[in-house]
Amino acid sequence: MRLVSCTVQNELSAPAIPRPKRPGRPRSQSTEKAILAATGQLLAESGLTAMTIEGVAARAGVGKASIYRRWPSKGALAFDATLSEYLAGQPTRDTGTLEGDLLATARDWIRSVKRSPLGPTLRFLIAEVQHDPTLADAWRERFVGPVRVQRRPIVERAIARGEIPADSDAELILDMLYGPLYHRYLHGHLALNDRFAIGVARMTAAGAGAGGAALPRT
Amino acid sequence: MRLVSCTVQNELSAPAIPRPKRPGRPRSQSTEKAILAATGQLLAESGLTAMTIEGVAARAGVGKASIYRRWPSKGALAFDATLSEYLAGQPTRDTGTLEGDLLATARDWIRSVKRSPLGPTLRFLIAEVQHDPTLADAWRERFVGPVRVQRRPIVERAIARGEIPADSDAELILDMLYGPLYHRYLHGHLALNDRFAIGVARMTAAGAGAGGAALPRT
Repeated sequence: MRLVSCTVQNELSAPAIPRPKRPGRPRSQSTEKAILAATGQLLAESGLTAMTIEGVAARAGVGKASIYRRWPSKGALAFDATLSEYLAGQPTRDTGTLEGDLLATARDWIRSVKRSPLGPTLRFLIAEVQHDPTLADAWRERFVGPVRVQRRPIVERAIARGEIPADSDAELILDMLYGPLYHRYLHGHLALNDRFAIGVARMTAAGAGAGGAALPRT
Repeated sequence: MRLVSCTVQNELSAPAIPRPKRPGRPRSQSTEKAILAATGQLLAESGLTAMTIEGVAARAGVGKASIYRRWPSKGALAFDATLSEYLAGQPTRDTGTLEGDLLATARDWIRSVKRSPLGPTLRFLIAEVQHDPTLADAWRERFVGPVRVQRRPIVERAIARGEIPADSDAELILDMLYGPLYHRYLHGHLALNDRFAIGVARMTAAGAGAGGAALPRT
């Protein structure tokens, strides 16, 4: 049940300086981008169950072999496409305060799930993950883990600034931020609006600031 | 998107004093109980999609008409059965402090989803609700709303004791409690253990105590 620790390699973390050209590299990268974009579109349109590798290949204008060469399964491809879209629309924020970072992150998340195809995709994937343990493993490894690794600096910087105790649990703080957002999105019981983003950020920052995330080691 | 306000009538709120017998009443109540119990079992075994009114009738030893007389749809029956099981296993706690109430509630929830058939049932239902808007409406009206009405006294008592500001948003506080619990359960990225229950309760109580849930009216 431990979170998989992994580093994220995508266009966000790629260096901006020009690199020497290597034969085949640019074409391969654009193929990958086209496959991920086509996957994102098909996921948002019809979910993972209805999505096929054939459909992705046709939409991306590539052969099926180009996909299978890069991804071992439909689920792995779907999660990489979702992660890529997610991180591209929601960079990790650095506003100078914990509450500011949490609020910016919550606002980005709400905007992304409401106004981009990401919302329906997340909804579809989380539903399918509930009855497929293999898919659930891939979901945690290829989506949930990498997103959390990207966000951890929000907590580390708050500790470095002395805003929250040094032994504050970053995982708990991230769950206090994302849990309520996903909760209102998946249950739909109340509005997922800016007032809620402000409330979640204030509650989490105030709780962590008061030492609520610094639990004794067991 | 406003939460449906409703009162909950189930065996928990029934008076404990003996009532004068009315003809037919006991048999009707035991029929209802048998139907709800059979529904709970079938939901946990195979989820809402596979569950049928025929199957519930057979398991409960009643005719289909006895079910249709009481519930307008399979979804309504499933949600009432889940609510009944949920509230029976998780009464609203009154420990004397906000953090104590939140911790007891979190512990009850974790124990229920891990050790009773309630966990798989919630998982199944939340997944199915994601792609069926009619079912989602019934889920909010017959499950999410009533649970939250039952829990609201936890916040009201904290306000009455002066632990948190009078204008604290009860809905926000409940989302800060339940959101992280459902989040770890549905994503499975980290352990849903007692340490987490303690952390969520401390964070929520500390955040609310610091005024994090008292937002200016808009």
